[in-house]
Order: sequence, then structure tokens, then C-alpha cells
Amino acid sequence: MPDDQGLLDPLANGTRATELTRDSAFLQAMVDAELGLTLALIDAGLVPGWMGAVCEQLADASRLDLAAIAAEGRAGGNPVIPLVKHLGARAETFRSGASDHLHVGATSQDILDTATMLVTRRVAGEMLAQLGTLADGLAVLADQHRATPMVGRTLGQHASPTSFGFVAASWLDAVLQAKDRLAAERASLPIQLGGAVGTLAVLSSIASERLPDSPPAQTIDLVLGLFARRLGLAEPVIPWHTNRLVVTGIASALAAATGAVGAFALDVTVLSRTEIGELSERLSPGEGGSSAMPHKRNPVTAVLVTAAARQTPALLATLYSSLLAEGQRPSGAWHAEWAALRTLESVAVAAVTGAVDLAARLDVDSGRMLANLDLTEGLVFSERVTTILAEALGKARAFDLVGRASREAYETGRPLRVVLSAYLAADSPLRQSDDDALRARVWSAFDLTDFGHSDAGIDRALRRHRGLEATINEEGTPVA
Amino acid sequence: MPDDQGLLDPLANGTRATELTRDSAFLQAMVDAELGLTLALIDAGLVPGWMGAVCEQLADASRLDLAAIAAEGRAGGNPVIPLVKHLGARAETFRSGASDHLHVGATSQDILDTATMLVTRRVAGEMLAQLGTLADGLAVLADQHRATPMVGRTLGQHASPTSFGFVAASWLDAVLQAKDRLAAERASLPIQLGGAVGTLAVLSSIASERLPDSPPAQTIDLVLGLFARRLGLAEPVIPWHTNRLVVTGIASALAAATGAVGAFALDVTVLSRTEIGELSERLSPGEGGSSAMPHKRNPVTAVLVTAAARQTPALLATLYSSLLAEGQRPSGAWHAEWAALRTLESVAVAAVTGAVDLAARLDVDSGRMLANLDLTEGLVFSERVTTILAEALGKARAFDLVGRASREAYETGRPLRVVLSAYLAADSPLRQSDDDALRARVWSAFDLTDFGHSDAGIDRALRRHRGLEATINEEGTPVA
Amino acid sequence: MPDDQGLLDPLANGTRATELTRDSAFLQAMVDAELGLTLALIDAGLVPGWMGAVCEQLADASRLDLAAIAAEGRAGGNPVIPLVKHLGARAETFRSGASDHLHVGATSQDILDTATMLVTRRVAGEMLAQLGTLADGLAVLADQHRATPMVGRTLGQHASPTSFGFVAASWLDAVLQAKDRLAAERASLPIQLGGAVGTLAVLSSIASERLPDSPPAQTIDLVLGLFARRLGLAEPVIPWHTNRLVVTGIASALAAATGAVGAFALDVTVLSRTEIGELSERLSPGEGGSSAMPHKRNPVTAVLVTAAARQTPALLATLYSSLLAEGQRPSGAWHAEWAALRTLESVAVAAVTGAVDLAARLDVDSGRMLANLDLTEGLVFSERVTTILAEALGKARAFDLVGRASREAYETGRPLRVVLSAYLAADSPLRQSDDDALRARVWSAFDLTDFGHSDAGIDRALRRHRGLEATINEEGTPVA
Amino acid sequence: MPDDQGLLDPLANGTRATELTRDSAFLQAMVDAELGLTLALIDAGLVPGWMGAVCEQLADASRLDLAAIAAEGRAGGNPVIPLVKHLGARAETFRSGASDHLHVGATSQDILDTATMLVTRRVAGEMLAQLGTLADGLAVLADQHRATPMVGRTLGQHASPTSFGFVAASWLDAVLQAKDRLAAERASLPIQLGGAVGTLAVLSSIASERLPDSPPAQTIDLVLGLFARRLGLAEPVIPWHTNRLVVTGIASALAAATGAVGAFALDVTVLSRTEIGELSERLSPGEGGSSAMPHKRNPVTAVLVTAAARQTPALLATLYSSLLAEGQRPSGAWHAEWAALRTLESVAVAAVTGAVDLAARLDVDSGRMLANLDLTEGLVFSERVTTILAEALGKARAFDLVGRASREAYETGRPLRVVLSAYLAADSPLRQSDDDALRARVWSAFDLTDFGHSDAGIDRALRRHRGLEATINEEGTPVA
Repeated sequence: MPDDQGLLDPLANGTRATELTRDSAFLQAMVDAELGLTLALIDAGLVPGWMGAVCEQLADASRLDLAAIAAEGRAGGNPVIPLVKHLGARAETFRSGASDHLHVGATSQDILDTATMLVTRRVAGEMLAQLGTLADGLAVLADQHRATPMVGRTLGQHASPTSFGFVAASWLDAVLQAKDRLAAERASLPIQLGGAVGTLAVLSSIASERLPDSPPAQTIDLVLGLFARRLGLAEPVIPWHTNRLVVTGIASALAAATGAVGAFALDVTVLSRTEIGELSERLSPGEGGSSAMPHKRNPVTAVLVTAAARQTPALLATLYSSLLAEGQRPSGAWHAEWAALRTLESVAVAAVTGAVDLAARLDVDSGRMLANLDLTEGLVFSERVTTILAEALGKARAFDLVGRASREAYETGRPLRVVLSAYLAADSPLRQSDDDALRARVWSAFDLTDFGHSDAGIDRALRRHRGLEATINEEGTPVA
Repeated sequence: MPDDQGLLDPLANGTRATELTRDSAFLQAMVDAELGLTLALIDAGLVPGWMGAVCEQLADASRLDLAAIAAEGRAGGNPVIPLVKHLGARAETFRSGASDHLHVGATSQDILDTATMLVTRRVAGEMLAQLGTLADGLAVLADQHRATPMVGRTLGQHASPTSFGFVAASWLDAVLQAKDRLAAERASLPIQLGGAVGTLAVLSSIASERLPDSPPAQTIDLVLGLFARRLGLAEPVIPWHTNRLVVTGIASALAAATGAVGAFALDVTVLSRTEIGELSERLSPGEGGSSAMPHKRNPVTAVLVTAAARQTPALLATLYSSLLAEGQRPSGAWHAEWAALRTLESVAVAAVTGAVDLAARLDVDSGRMLANLDLTEGLVFSERVTTILAEALGKARAFDLVGRASREAYETGRPLRVVLSAYLAADSPLRQSDDDALRARVWSAFDLTDFGHSDAGIDRALRRHRGLEATINEEGTPVA
Repeated sequence: MPDDQGLLDPLANGTRATELTRDSAFLQAMVDAELGLTLALIDAGLVPGWMGAVCEQLADASRLDLAAIAAEGRAGGNPVIPLVKHLGARAETFRSGASDHLHVGATSQDILDTATMLVTRRVAGEMLAQLGTLADGLAVLADQHRATPMVGRTLGQHASPTSFGFVAASWLDAVLQAKDRLAAERASLPIQLGGAVGTLAVLSSIASERLPDSPPAQTIDLVLGLFARRLGLAEPVIPWHTNRLVVTGIASALAAATGAVGAFALDVTVLSRTEIGELSERLSPGEGGSSAMPHKRNPVTAVLVTAAARQTPALLATLYSSLLAEGQRPSGAWHAEWAALRTLESVAVAAVTGAVDLAARLDVDSGRMLANLDLTEGLVFSERVTTILAEALGKARAFDLVGRASREAYETGRPLRVVLSAYLAADSPLRQSDDDALRARVWSAFDLTDFGHSDAGIDRALRRHRGLEATINEEGTPVA
Repeated sequence: MPDDQGLLDPLANGTRATELTRDSAFLQAMVDAELGLTLALIDAGLVPGWMGAVCEQLADASRLDLAAIAAEGRAGGNPVIPLVKHLGARAETFRSGASDHLHVGATSQDILDTATMLVTRRVAGEMLAQLGTLADGLAVLADQHRATPMVGRTLGQHASPTSFGFVAASWLDAVLQAKDRLAAERASLPIQLGGAVGTLAVLSSIASERLPDSPPAQTIDLVLGLFARRLGLAEPVIPWHTNRLVVTGIASALAAATGAVGAFALDVTVLSRTEIGELSERLSPGEGGSSAMPHKRNPVTAVLVTAAARQTPALLATLYSSLLAEGQRPSGAWHAEWAALRTLESVAVAAVTGAVDLAARLDVDSGRMLANLDLTEGLVFSERVTTILAEALGKARAFDLVGRASREAYETGRPLRVVLSAYLAADSPLRQSDDDALRARVWSAFDLTDFGHSDAGIDRALRRHRGLEATINEEGTPVA
């Protein structure tokens, strides 16, 4: 949207989302793609060496007239046609005949797809870095709060005790999984180079002409490799003009990452509800306010990250719809990808950056967690109590007995322990058994320091976290 | 996207899409909403009359610092909070104490929702005007080509003859239906005014205080009516902070309109295929080109309109998902609407404008239509022939006989008429019947000037078109 | 899914969702469409009168071999082709030559589209009835609880007081809006009748042949009207084989209704959270349980209705995508509608029926509402207090003062009233003013029996409810 | 949908789609999950060995009352609660007390998620097999038709020559990529086992009780490993009750595969258009027909596969929306997954199976390909001609000259070669150059046996195909 300042996209403000995906970023990537191709052709001997100096002069896309290129894109339906014209005109000012050596053998889609992959690689790199920081923050929470009792909630209702560390470890595991997926997709983002209909007929003809002694196929394979390496992209098996699995693949990873951080943010919005109050965003003065209510302390970041994650599934659906691409360049499916992917990327970067901010400012109220755990007067221990009684009564009877006791406790507001005591006293098989030992074990079910297998889960997630640290370098590239 | 010039959105270039939905349009609408409220409060006697002059001074939103407001929107999660601050500061420069009379009784959502309805009303008005022009163009095509023979195609295969006028009348009918739906939704776009949680508690308290002799409920009803009339919007039954059917309603109409013009454009892309060539976009020099192939004459507008229509269903889905809005202002569902609705509006305006352009430059090659109709050597008349033969043979036998003849015609490449002749001669019941009359009738089935009920359909669509012309004025408002 | 018993769709169990949309319902509707056409042709004089008796014999679709028809549908890509064969064979058993008078002039899409409209009309009728019952229930809640204080929540945080009646009135308004939209769409569901490519060429030819004295166009218009009236459907302007706005229109209304009841259910899931406890589903023995935790009392119905509403936006998107339908019958867009619309209809009926059940079993805990309102020690009155203080201090200073007091109250846990008292005492302009009167008014802000404009909103919604009752009859048809 | 026979889903008929995803398949998988857990617990020493024999008796899910279990699922909101009851009751008939040893430590979601993974694994296995067969078929086409000239089409217009083999190789590459992605996701489908809130508190308590000498964490790790191995699923890092990246991951792969085969089918629908006629489905008698037109030969399979691929993006969007899952089991997000994933799986299997059928019955009309290539009288060679002329004229002048010649050729209907000849003769720099050599090279551009780099692309795709054959075994598991 021309002249947009992000009025309706507060989450992106102050993040790299805009910088990485704005028009000027795409124009730069398009220039990078064009020049990367020319440089590869120089190295392969298909373009004269002096073009190297011209390419250097042309490298900065901010010297081009973005507005004019955008406006002229209407006539041919894509921005590459005017870009080639503008870039060629500039090239001629440096050396006559230079424009002949730009866009050689390429079609518009080659350049726009490659540029999109460059932008996407940068976006994914930023996201991997942010996801790494987020994982670090969540790992600390998981470790520090492994013994912080908290109630686990299913379908919104208190269920059984857990620890806040375990909850954080679950967030961490999702973030790490999203990071893995994204790193793998990022590593395979390819160049696009096929010429008009994918067969590289022009390059082939030029190769025969200029390097008559080499088999053209060999020359072209060399060009493809050089082009890919120059841009830091992968080399595809075959042009993918109408095979868009690359696009849906990376888009899926972006949406998955947004969803993973969105789920974390959603939990924060729930757990910071006034009645729950277990978590809160630490707000700076002026943050989280309302235009009507001076007391408001809204979990703004959590809400905006959640909102971001609500937008990505549909954008992804548009991209999957574009898999239905006919011919050698489709009549609309390709064009429909542009805005959807770009918006998805911007939303994803903003969401992940917002989540990092959220994790860094998360206040944990362990007192409130403990108080909430106690709200149901022991009902949350029903599963454990049932397990213990089942040893003596069998599972069905135990489940039924605890169920009845729970209902009575719920209806009378008395602690489950008290109600249960009466039930146990009245139950003949229990009376006949070794009462005291059983009862002691039943009471032990109400132990807040028993977190089941929680620690093991936390440790597994932390190990995964440490493992990943070693395999992704700071530029976002998987190492080893 | 800040600094965006539409590089990746060529279809919007040169349309009003950007102008109507850009940040500055939203900021203006937000100012319109704030001032509309203040003016309504003046009229109702709740704000002093001198604020009228201040409002005049504040009316031009371009005097505000859009970038600052956008940036400050991050802290509270929406742009209204900083807008109120900036607008208030400007108001104070005109008269001390003026800021007290801005945003009275309103919450952020009241202003942003009302502003969104204003933007949407303008967008829908533009679309109705464009759809009207498009309908005019399609009506001319339908009328002029009612006797232009063309083959009807089902599942991509030649089916039976039709006329190009009938095809155009079908496009017309869809456009008129979309226009009707849009006009109805546009007419019911409401203001939003509820205060913090919808109960207008503050306005109620102010009304009691300042107009102690009137029942506050009556004063507020007056304010609601005045506010709505000032902005040209409807008055809702009750605030709709978390009842978003208004949003999905208008969005559905926008998506339906985009789909209707998209279907027209899709037909153009198909019918302008090189092998079909019945329609083509009249291209100006430089249009429809390729960066690789100098001969290319791409149906660029048709392709871009089709691409636009591929993007709207998913945006609509995001808005329908936001119907799940909890509490008195939800934690994300509302925020997720902003970008989706705005993008939908921009895409819809661009698509409809593109379709007008396409209709205005559509070349119809009736010679090619006739030639294509003849491609299958008469097979497209199989349905009619069957009907005639069924009178003598019964339907099942006629269907079978024509089926066998068609298969033979298809396999041998001979005209259906020739093959059929032999079949009829060999068929005993036919031989026994009054051969000549039947055969004459069979041959009449191959008559290209018989369009069945096509004319009646065209006339119905044209009548609908003329009827609608009277009921929508140029501003887009239905006129009784 | 053959042999499905609803294992993964518990919400549909016990509703009419299945009965209305199962294969046998579609087969019956297809038979209804075929016979409706034949009967219309009899009335118009194009088919002999004795076919009326045959049609009576054929009316019950359960006499057909559904499994065989389904299986044979693969060859031609739709179930109408085998249906015509099976129906014709049965017809011949009643009278030789009868099959000639079935499916006259129709194409497969005519029958399947018309049948789909019949199913949809029945679905929408059921939904209108259920929405009516739901509205009745919500209207009672709105009226009875107009003076039940409750906290309004924005972004999950306590905001300002409201009444539970007002919240229920907002649900009611959404339900009524959804009902209006659905009734309007239902009333315009049309027949489909165009023949192979929409021009009714065959019917036209038959009309000329059999009624040579009437203009064929007039005969056909008669048939269209008779066909529509027999089936209780509307007559379209022109066949809509590739203009699918009818489908997206009714689907939008179904999705809107599902969203409206989903929002109600979502509020119930939130308000029945253990920590909130203001609402709960009255559970019968065995309901709301868990396989692991005997104490669990899950808001199962609310959860399942919410889940239903999460599924509809995407189904709707598929249908909007099918607006892009090319030619006279598209290569996939039409076929992609079938499952999406049917599933949408089943989900919508189940959701609305579930919501009726939920409303009927909703326990309201007004004591808990009052207790929650008090949780923040008066912070929720900050908006009202600010309004009152603004009269003396101006809005900005009042907002700032209450903001500071709220922060202190929040941090120290002391009641806002207490903290504010000290602030007011320390503020010189306030000291100079008529302290007692102002202070009295400030304290009045904390009045729980002042619901602002809430009653007026409730009354408006209730009037809308009563008004609608008069305009929709029990069959779901709007009555002037 | 109970009693559904696939009336509205012709593509699934005759495939394994139904069998793999119907209710009975899910019920069996749920039983497999329950018994797999019990057997793992036996092996770990937590359940007595005699339960092994009981498990054998219980293994066949068809002995359970599916309808009753489905109906009873409404009360608790999921089918596991009644399953446990029914399974337990049957267990008791074999040995008293046996029911105590079922569902030990598990929550409903553990069983349903694990069962879903089992179903999904079977679905993915079937799809890998079908994709393998499809790849084989496409590989043959790619290889056999590497020298079959065909026109490449961009935006529906003739662009440049290619070979049909190259087009087939592009389909093949997409299918192989989809297969890779699916195989990778399939290999990592995990069990779910966490108990009520993920901490395995009950199992932990039982482990302490029954194996007091082993650390419970070690016992549980053993159980997790045994459970996973028994079911052939992976072991997750931590329970994934609300981390649904596993679901979106496999669903993305299923949608990608459907999209890949959908793109192939879409190309077939286009290339079998009457005017193009390069491909056709070989139809058996009775296939591809119409209910109205006896001559119709519709590409039914291609259309149905395309239609399938139009439905998957939205289903995927629903699943991505469910990433926003709060707490330890969400209030709707999880429930909304069930139908979406199951439908996606059914559609995906049907689509891939349909594509196999389509490839097996694809008739290639190479004569028609050649004829179509000639339709534009040489315009499709414009890119190549420009390349050659650019050597003498520079790129811009060559592009302009060929552009003007193409336009004249297009407008006059004369062959490009003829028009160009005149242009070359009139162009002075060309006249001055070594005319004959240049002209010879220009004419060589019109060589139909030069496919550029096409062969190399085909070979790369075929190598990928052969490579994959070795790494996926017939059960669908990647080997080595």
C-alpha cells in the first residue's frame, strides 16, 4: 500500500519485517538476481569480463526509480519488464552495449522467483535468529520453573497439577520444531532459471555460439551452479515455473513458526486474564493502555502476536491454491502468490519478533499459580487419587468413587480430601484392607511437589535446545 | 508496507484502490469519526457549541503526523490511542480545553470500527460505480452478439452451440447480482459507539450531568442518530464490538463482486488462448509483452483480474474466523480483521476496475467463433439431433444411436451428418417411418441460427440491468 | 464417508444434520428435481399426462439402489448420469416408454444444482427454526438479567461494569442478524434449468414440435415457472451454471450463523473457566466427563459448537474459490463445491442445534459475577470516575490522575476508592472546589446499579426479536 | 456422514480412500493404540502378563458396537470415553479385572491422537505407493517424449517450443518432491502419551508403586519407547497435546502431494480441450459421458483430480488455525482438527489414485502437438531469433526488430520467417554484415529438433526418480 506507515500493523513497527519485505527490498533482490546471473555468465565465459565493473555500478537498487518501475509494471503484468529496461538504460550510461549482457537467457519469472527466494532467505534468516533468542528465553523459564506448581487446564477447566516449567518446555519444543522446519526449508531455497518455457533455449544457443568447443549442456550446468552459489541459493533439479512446492514448503514453515509463537502468546493472553493472573507482560509506562480506561494494563504484545497467527493460515491457503498452475507459466496462479507470500513473511517476522519481546518481559506470579491450584479444594488431584485407590478397588470402582466424591466436593464446596475421607470410611472393602497404609498413600496424592514425569520432559526439551544451538549458525545456516 | 509503490501489485496501479485504502485514507476516516462524534454531541447539547469551529480546524487529517501515530500505536496495540493524543494536542493550539471534548464517551474500537465503515462505504461506492460501468459494457456485448454463434464448452470440451451474446448475458447477470448484494450491504454499514464495554456508561453519565432534565437514554439515542446521519452510516441495534456479522457481510459482498469479475476475466483468458482466439484484449503498444519473447501478446489484464479473484477467498476466511470474538473486545480476533479487510478492499477495487478496462478493450472475433464451432464436424449438434430422433425412436435408442454415430464420426474424422445419414438408412423403424420429413428435421438440427431460449435469457438479463440502473444513483446509493 | 456413524463428529449426533445432508437426502432431492421437471412439463403440455402416475410411483428415492448409483457416478464424474439410468429403468417397469419423459431438456448440472438447492432449503429451514428457539432463549436471558451486574472484559482484562443481560442481548442481536441473512438467502434459492449449455435448446425444440401454435419462448417461461413453484424454489434470471453467487450467498449466511452461535459458545467456554465460573453448562450424569479425571465437568457442548465454528471459514473459502468457473460448466470448480457445501451445511445445523441445547442448559451464577466484579478493588470503575473528575479537572488531567491512582491501587492491592481519596485530598484545584459535592459524585461512580445505556440496548434487541417473530413463518419463509 | 455411499465423491469410489479413513478404520486404530499401550506396559512390567491374551481377544475392533460408541461420544465430546467403557466391558468377559489394565495412565487425547497418527501413517503409506507408480508412469513419458516437439504456453499464449518429455519431466519432478516431503513427515509421526496434562503423573505413580526399585522416569522412558515401537511410530520429545506442528506438518505434505497431482491433472484438462487436443484420457465405454450430449468425451478423471486439489488448501488452513491451542487441551482447536484432517486424507488418497489412473490412460497426440506448434506461423521462435540477431544488432534493437516483425506477422497472418526476411533486407547494419551466414543462423532458429537444455533437465529428473526408488521401500519407509 503506497505511503503506508504501518498504521494498521502495529506489531511490525520496530521490527525488521518491513525492511526485509518492502518494495525496495524486492527491487534490490531483483537487481541482485539480474546481476548474479550476469556475473555467473561472465565466469562461464558467456559474457565479457568488463561487465563485472558495470555490475558493480548497478548493484545499488536504490539508484533506480522504484515508483516508475512499479507503475510501468501494469502493462506487462509484472515488474521485471520495466526493471530490465531501467537497469539496461543505467548500464548504457556506464558503457555502451552493456545492456546486451543483462537478463541474458532469462524470463521475467526467473528473476522474480529468484528475487523472491532471496527475500525469503533473508526473512527466514531473521526468523531463525529470533526463534533462537526466543528458545533461549523459554529454555530459561523451563529450567527455572521446573518446580513451580501450576494447574494444568483442559477445555478451560482445572485438570491436574503440572509445573510452569513443563508448560514452558512445551512452548520451547514447539519453537524448536518450527525452527528445525524453517532451517531445512531455508537451506533448500533454489534459484529459478529456465528462460521462456524452462528449456533454457536461449542460453543453450548462446553457449553453442560463444563456446563452440564445449557441449552447451555442460556450459549451462556450470552457469546454473555459479548462479546459485553467487546468490547463496540451491540449484533445482529442473525449473519450477509451474511446480510451486518450493513456495508452499517455505510458506508452511513460516506459518508453522507463526503458529508456534502464536500458541505461546495465546497462552499468555489466557494466563494473564484478570481472574487468572499467573502471567503478565511487564509494561513500560504508556504501554498496554486504553483510550477510555486509565486503569487498563492490556497484554498488548500477546494479543498482537495471537492476531498475527490468526492471519497466516488463510495466506497459506492462497499459496497452496496456486499449486494448480497450468502450462509453462499460469494465467493467474503465479501472480496470486506475490502478495500472499510477502504478507505472510512480514506477518511472520513481526510475530516472531513480538514473541521474543513477550518472553523477555514475562512476569511469572508463582504465588498466584499456587493459589489457583488450590481453588478447587483438591479436585485437581482426582486422577492421582483414583490411581492409588485403583490398586485396592480396581479402576472402575475407584473412578466411580472418586467421581462421586468429587461431585459432592464440588457441590458442597468442601475439600475433596475431607469428603473422600468419609467415603473411604464407609467403603467396606477398604475398611477391610490395611486402612492406614492406603490412606497415607491417598493423602500423598495431594503432594504438590510430585510432578510426575515432568522433569524428564523438560530435560528432553532442553537437550533438544542445546543440540540445535550447535547446528544452526548465527546467519541461520545449519552447520555440520 | 511502508514505502510500497505497488511493485508487486500492478493491477492496483492507476486505480483508486490505493487512494481509498491507504493509511492516509484510514487516518482521515478516523478523524472524520472523531469529529463526527463531537459534532453530534454539540447538536445534542453535550459539548459546547464553540467546538464546532475547532472541529473545522481539525478536519484535515493530512495535518497530523501519520508516521508518529503509526509508530506510537504499538504501545497500546491500536492507532486510536495516539490519534486521540495528537488530535487533542492540535485542538489545544486552537482553543484551550478543546481536547476535553474529543473522543467523549468513545473507546478505541468505536473510532476504528466507524472509520473502517467509512472507508468501506467509500470503497463500496467506487465499486458500485465501476460495476455499473462494467454492466453497461457487458449489456452492449450481450445485445449486439445475440446472434453471434459460438460453441458452448463444458469440462473444456465442445458441447452445444450457444451465442456469444448469451455468454455475455451470463457475465452480466453475475455482475448485477454482485452489485445488488454490495449495494444492500453498503446501505447498512453502521456506526460503532458503545464506550468501553458497549453500555455507553460515560455518555450516559455525562448526559445526566449536563442535561439533567432529559432522560439520559433519550439524549443518547439522539446522539446515536446524529452521529450516524453525519457520517452517512446506519444506526445499529446495539454495539457490535464482538458481533462481527457486519464485517463478514460486506466482505462477502466484496469477495462476491471480485469473484464475479474474476469469472469474466477467467473466461477471457481461456477464450484468448492461442488455439481458441475468440476473444482478445486490445493491447496498446508496450502492453502484454514479455521480457523474453518479442512476439508475446499476453491477456495481461484478464490474468491480473483472475489473480485478484484467487486471493479474496482466503482473506474472507480470516474475517469469518474473527466471528469467534470473545468478551467485550477480543484478544486478537478484532486485530486480525484490520489487514485482511483492508487488503480485500484494495484487491476488490483493483479487480473491478481492471474488469472495466478489460471489457472496454475486448476484441471479439466472430469469424473464429464460427470456425471453432465447426471444428468437431457437427458433433456439437448431437443433443439437438437426439431430441429430434427421440420423437421417432424413443429417447434411449436415439441417445444410443447418436452416441454410436458420434463415436464413429470422432474416430474417422468424418462429419456427423454424413455418418448419421448411413445410420438412419440402416435403421429399420426409421426406414418404415416417413423418412423424408424426419430427415429434414434432423438436418434442421444443424442450424446455426437457432439459439434455443438464448434470446429470452439475454432479454431477462438486460431487463434486470435496466431496472437496476434506476435504483442505484451515481454515489452508489440505492434510490428507492 | 461410507459406513460413517459420526465417530468423529459427536456434535452432529442426535441432530437433524445428518438426516438432512446424507446421501439419501441428496438422492431424494435429485429424484424430486427430476420428477418436478417432468410434472412441470406435463402441466405445460410437453409430456403426456399419464406420466403423472408414473412419477408418483417413482417418488420414493429409497427404492433406488443408492450404492450402485454412487459407484457408477465415477465414469461420468457425477451421480446424475447413473440416476437417470436407474430411474428410467424403474419407470419402464411401470409403463413402457416412460423413461423417454424423464430428464427431458435437462443436463446433469440442472438436476444436481436444483437438488442441492432443495437440500439447502431444508437445511436453512431447520436452521431458522433452531435460530428462532435460540433467540427465544437468549431473549429471556437478556430480559431477566438486565440488572445482573457483571464485569465487561476487553483483551481478557477487566474493563468496566456491564450487565449479563446486556451481554446476552449482544448474543441475541448477532443471532437475529444471522437469521435475517439466512432467511433472505433461503427465500431466493433458485432452480437450475438450462440444458447442455444454458440455452434450453432441447426444450425449445420440443416446444416448437409439440406445441407448434405457441411461441416456444412462452412455453419455456411457463415450464420454468411451474418447475420453480413445484419445488418451492425461485426462478433465476438466467441459468447460473457458472455464476455461483447463489452458492456463495447461502454459504455465507450458513457460515455467519455458525459464527454467531460459535461466538456465544466461545463466551461460554471462557466464562465457565474454573477461575471465572460465571456460567456453566448444566450437565446430566455422564456428561462433560474425562477418561482420566473423575472430577471433570467440561463445557462439552460449548467446546464442540466453538469447534464447529472454526471449521466453516475454510469451507466457505473453497466455495468462493469456485466462483472462478470457466466456460459453460467448469473443469473442477463445480465439482469442488459439492463436498464443501454439504459439510458446511452439516456443521452449521449441528452447531446451531448445539447452541440451542447450550442455551437451554446454561446456569448463571450471578453471585460469582458480582464477586469477580469486585476482584480488582474498584479499578473497573476508572472510566466512570475519570468522566466525573473531568468535569472539574479537564479530561487529560483526570485521565492522568486516575491512571496514577489505578497503578498505585494495582501495585499495593488497596481499593481504588481509598487510594483516590488521598489523591483528591492532595490535589489543590480539587481542594479549592466544592469538595463534598464532587466527592459524592465520585463515590457514586462506584454504583453497581448504574448500567449506563445498557437497558436501552437490551430493549432494542428485544424489539428486534419480537419484530422478527412476525416476519418469518414456521416454514422459514419471510411473511411480508 | 452416516450411510454415505460416496454419492457426492465419485473420485474416491474404487480407491482405498474410504477404507483407510472411515469410522471403522479410526475405531480400529483407537483399539490398536489402547492395546499397544497395554502391551508396552506388560513388557515394562507395569501390567500383568496375562493381559497379553486378553489383548489378543480384543484386537479386532469390528467386534465393538461402532454406532453405540459414536452416539455415546456426544456426552464427553470425544469417542475415546465410550470406547474405553465398551472395550473394558468386553475385556471383563474374558477375564475379570482385565479392564483395570486398559487405558492405564492415558487421557482421551493420547488415544485419539495416537490413533490418528496410525491412520495417517497408513494413508501416507498408500500415497507413497501410488506416488511411486505415478512417478514411474511420468518417467516413461518424460523419456519417451524427449524429442516430441510441443509448444510451451505462458499466460495461455504460445510462447516458445519445448518437448512433451520436458513437460512430463516437470510433472515428475513435482511428484518426486511431494513424495520426498511426505516420506519425511511420515517417518516422524509420533505416538502421543502424556496423561491428563502431559506430565504422565499416573504412570509415574504406578511405576513407583509397582517397580519400586527402578527410577520411575526410567520405567516411563522404557514404556514410551516400547509403545512407539509396537505401533511403528516415533517417540516425541515431549507430549504434543497443544503443540500441533506434527499435524500441520503431515497435512502440508498431503496437501502438497494433492497439489502436485492436481497440477498434472489441470494440465491434462487444458491440453485435452477440443481446440488443443494434444492429450486425452483413454475412455472405456460409458466413461466421460454426459446426461444430455451423446457425443461427449469428457476428461472426467482429470477434472475430478483437479477438483480434489481445489479442496485441500482450505482444509489445511483449518489445521493451521488449530495451532492456536491454549492450555493443556484446548477448547475447540483440537476438536476442529478431526474432520479437517480426515477429509484431507481421504481427498488426498483419492486424488493421487486418480492421477495414477489418469497417467495410465493418457493418450498423447504428437501430430496435434506439431500442428499446434505451427499455428502461429513461426512466432514461437521469436525468442531464439532475437538471440541470434542480438549478436549482430545488440539485444535492444534485435528485440525491437523481431517485435515489429512479429506484430506484422500476427496482423497479416503471414509466416514470421517471410516477414523477417523483408525486415532483414531493409536493415542497413545487417546488409553491411555478412548477410548469408547471419541469415542461415536466423533460419536455424526455426529448427524443431533443438530443444535447448531440455534433455539435461529430463535426465536430472529421471536421475532423481531412480535415486528415490532405492530409498523408499514398498511399505513407504525410507531405507538407508
